[in-house]
Amino acid sequence: MNYTIIRYILGWLLRFEAIFLLLPAATSLVYHETTIWYWLLIAGICLILGLLLSAKKPSNAELYTRDGYMTVALSWIVMSLFGAIPFVLTGDIPNYVDALFETISGFTTTGASILSDVESLNHSALMWRSFSHWIGGMGVFVFMMAVLPLIGGSDMNLMKAESPGPSVERLVPHVKDTAKILYQIYIVITVVEAALLIIFRMPVFDAMTLTFGTVGTGGFGVRNDSIGGYTDAQQIIITIFMLLSGINYTAYFYLISGKIREIFKLEEVRWYLIIVASAVTLITVNTLQSVGSVSRSLQDAFFQVASIITTTGYSTANFDLWPELSKTVLVILMFIGACASSTGGGIKVSRFIILLKGIGKEVQTILHPRSIRKIRVDGKAVAHEVIRSTNVFIAIYFMIFMFSVLLISVDNHDFTTNFTAVLASINNIGPGLNEVGPACNFSFFSPFSKVVLMFDMLTGRLELFPMLILCAPRMHHVRKQRRREQ
Amino acid sequence: MNYTIIRYILGWLLRFEAIFLLLPAATSLVYHETTIWYWLLIAGICLILGLLLSAKKPSNAELYTRDGYMTVALSWIVMSLFGAIPFVLTGDIPNYVDALFETISGFTTTGASILSDVESLNHSALMWRSFSHWIGGMGVFVFMMAVLPLIGGSDMNLMKAESPGPSVERLVPHVKDTAKILYQIYIVITVVEAALLIIFRMPVFDAMTLTFGTVGTGGFGVRNDSIGGYTDAQQIIITIFMLLSGINYTAYFYLISGKIREIFKLEEVRWYLIIVASAVTLITVNTLQSVGSVSRSLQDAFFQVASIITTTGYSTANFDLWPELSKTVLVILMFIGACASSTGGGIKVSRFIILLKGIGKEVQTILHPRSIRKIRVDGKAVAHEVIRSTNVFIAIYFMIFMFSVLLISVDNHDFTTNFTAVLASINNIGPGLNEVGPACNFSFFSPFSKVVLMFDMLTGRLELFPMLILCAPRMHHVRKQRRREQ
Repeated sequence: MNYTIIRYILGWLLRFEAIFLLLPAATSLVYHETTIWYWLLIAGICLILGLLLSAKKPSNAELYTRDGYMTVALSWIVMSLFGAIPFVLTGDIPNYVDALFETISGFTTTGASILSDVESLNHSALMWRSFSHWIGGMGVFVFMMAVLPLIGGSDMNLMKAESPGPSVERLVPHVKDTAKILYQIYIVITVVEAALLIIFRMPVFDAMTLTFGTVGTGGFGVRNDSIGGYTDAQQIIITIFMLLSGINYTAYFYLISGKIREIFKLEEVRWYLIIVASAVTLITVNTLQSVGSVSRSLQDAFFQVASIITTTGYSTANFDLWPELSKTVLVILMFIGACASSTGGGIKVSRFIILLKGIGKEVQTILHPRSIRKIRVDGKAVAHEVIRSTNVFIAIYFMIFMFSVLLISVDNHDFTTNFTAVLASINNIGPGLNEVGPACNFSFFSPFSKVVLMFDMLTGRLELFPMLILCAPRMHHVRKQRRREQ
Repeated sequence: MNYTIIRYILGWLLRFEAIFLLLPAATSLVYHETTIWYWLLIAGICLILGLLLSAKKPSNAELYTRDGYMTVALSWIVMSLFGAIPFVLTGDIPNYVDALFETISGFTTTGASILSDVESLNHSALMWRSFSHWIGGMGVFVFMMAVLPLIGGSDMNLMKAESPGPSVERLVPHVKDTAKILYQIYIVITVVEAALLIIFRMPVFDAMTLTFGTVGTGGFGVRNDSIGGYTDAQQIIITIFMLLSGINYTAYFYLISGKIREIFKLEEVRWYLIIVASAVTLITVNTLQSVGSVSRSLQDAFFQVASIITTTGYSTANFDLWPELSKTVLVILMFIGACASSTGGGIKVSRFIILLKGIGKEVQTILHPRSIRKIRVDGKAVAHEVIRSTNVFIAIYFMIFMFSVLLISVDNHDFTTNFTAVLASINNIGPGLNEVGPACNFSFFSPFSKVVLMFDMLTGRLELFPMLILCAPRMHHVRKQRRREQ
């Protein structure tokens, strides 16, 4: 383990967090909130700590895969631990565990809240909540890589640990340039959505916060009824931008590089749109009777499907009151999640494609034992390791999933609540069903269960391995090193 | 496809079914029930059809893997289609869909019932229900192989398709001898349990039927309160025999071969017992407050844990009323299931061992990229194909699972009911939670949902592939053959 470099990177992370905290501080200034000093105080502490930790550049900048995973997991935890403090100081969320839950939910773009009345919060607190979605959406390391000549050749190991999807594709040969391109696309989508919402008469504050929540696929709203109170036009804009944010960013890269034909070759995007269309159709038909009008039914179905498959978590309707078929469709979408290399969470469409093709291959092997077939996605053969790690991913996913449900069942809430609370946390969605439905919140869980769900949110956002390796016993490592020394 | 041999095997299957049907007929005779003629009628029809189909021995006895899977899937369906008819004729279950549900639930050793009042059934019908567990438990093909010099060298493909577990171990070099040994052990366990129950003053009829349900890990009872009304001693005997029936039969083979030391090397059995002990402890502590007495709480916990992990499905307590933690423990046990090569269902302990070791290996690969480790179970390296097919198994399992939940959600029952109904069906357990809890039954589902659940029961019992291959489109096959011909 290269502790020096981990310390150094954590230092830089805190420097960045100090800068991020200036946005809620500025919001305080605009809205003449007295809480401004608390934001500046924590920003100052982060800056000083950051400067201290990253004062000396480490001589050995080598970062192994293991260190990369550890660094990313640690960084997300440290970032959340500091990011939660202002909520407590300003009195917006007096309990630190709750504040931490809200902050982790923000950074991981989950959007699950312990607040029953968000409208009573300060503007600065609301801004920080939503901004945390934006920071966490594309990833803080991707950001750091884009702006810093950080640690030379080891950036890839950080990017691998933070970016979602079964394999990390470099859009261009250099990691730094890839990070830059990703953030450029991210910023363009953000600016366009915010501008459109403002043009369609949404207040600037709402437009900014909701845009952060949309493009980061977070889901924190600034009103108690989430998105339900906004105009149809505004809802439709948000629907479209949620869907756009769930698409593989490679598609946008092809778009700006003029390789339009390549976009249509992306199987994941194609399947993502097919799944969305099927789910919208099913839910529209299923909810038609209770809603009454086709247009309303279609609009709500579209909004909710976009919100859930992209793991955003906004709502315009209380889907917990929908018929069971529609609810089950949403539960399945929760598992599927968005495209890889998007800001969305979940298992990812591409993993399902790999799984389904793996099943097809296995069946073919039984039918024709001598046939040799490779799994191909987008016309390219999928590497053996990607298939294996996808399978392992699914296995770990379901084990952590069931173990989490077991742990929070101690609180004695019903199975649907526990199941969907974990589902909504590990897939970074936000609302679930029953007691954690879109009209409810997570405040009733015990501190223990909240910690379990926080772990799930981080595990889900960082795609299992960083958190797992952080928790993995160091025994083997030590033992092996000793053996080598002998 | 070798249709001649499939026809021939189906013929033999029907001959055997004719013999099996003599047991309920005999029961009718003992209890002077007028329904005897119906049992004999269907037995006669099966016999005649069987003789016709298997009259001519096929010249080409080659049975490929694909044909093996198809034959097994078809046979189980045909066996159930015929086995359901007597229920309708005798008036015990007037509706054919319900009768088929009950029969498939019997053969697959699920034990999920559509009956609200089993005590109103004829003795012959009760005997047939329970006997179907016994036939399905070890498998009808294993039985045929044990007693017939069937189709020479191709038996292995039938055995592979019918026997549970990630890999089929031949206890001895010849499939036929393996089948014989398995049935000998099976019969010994059956006789011992029935004898013990009779010694402890259980009526012979109850002792026989409940023993069939125990050693086959089925779960159909003959009283409305399942096992709740029997004496403590009788309940404890059943608990022990349920646990014994969930153990890998290889352990018994080692026992009778005097290789006691080998038994302790079986990791699966060790984990199975650890899981049982942990679950019993957790549930005993968790239910202590509501039950009051430690001994009652322990006994109920033990019974229910044994019943659920072995996928039997008997109950002595309405565990749907237990605290959520205990219920969640049971749900997790439902997923895990019994040992491979036992009569129990579920994903199987050995698959979880392989999965967990696969996860450990992946984590090690991240930590030490250059280390090469093999997955070992019982000290032996696990073949690459077994690992791959275990992974594929899990993927298919969860896809069929979620798709089934989606399909039956059309009936608009709550999520917990749908989820556990599918869980209880695909893992061949019987009862679930909520509306399909141990005090309830499956009669309220629509015929469509019942068909979905029947499919799940068969898919679970035959471990996915046979049913999947039966449903797989034949396109590829035809296309490839054509290509080969060109």
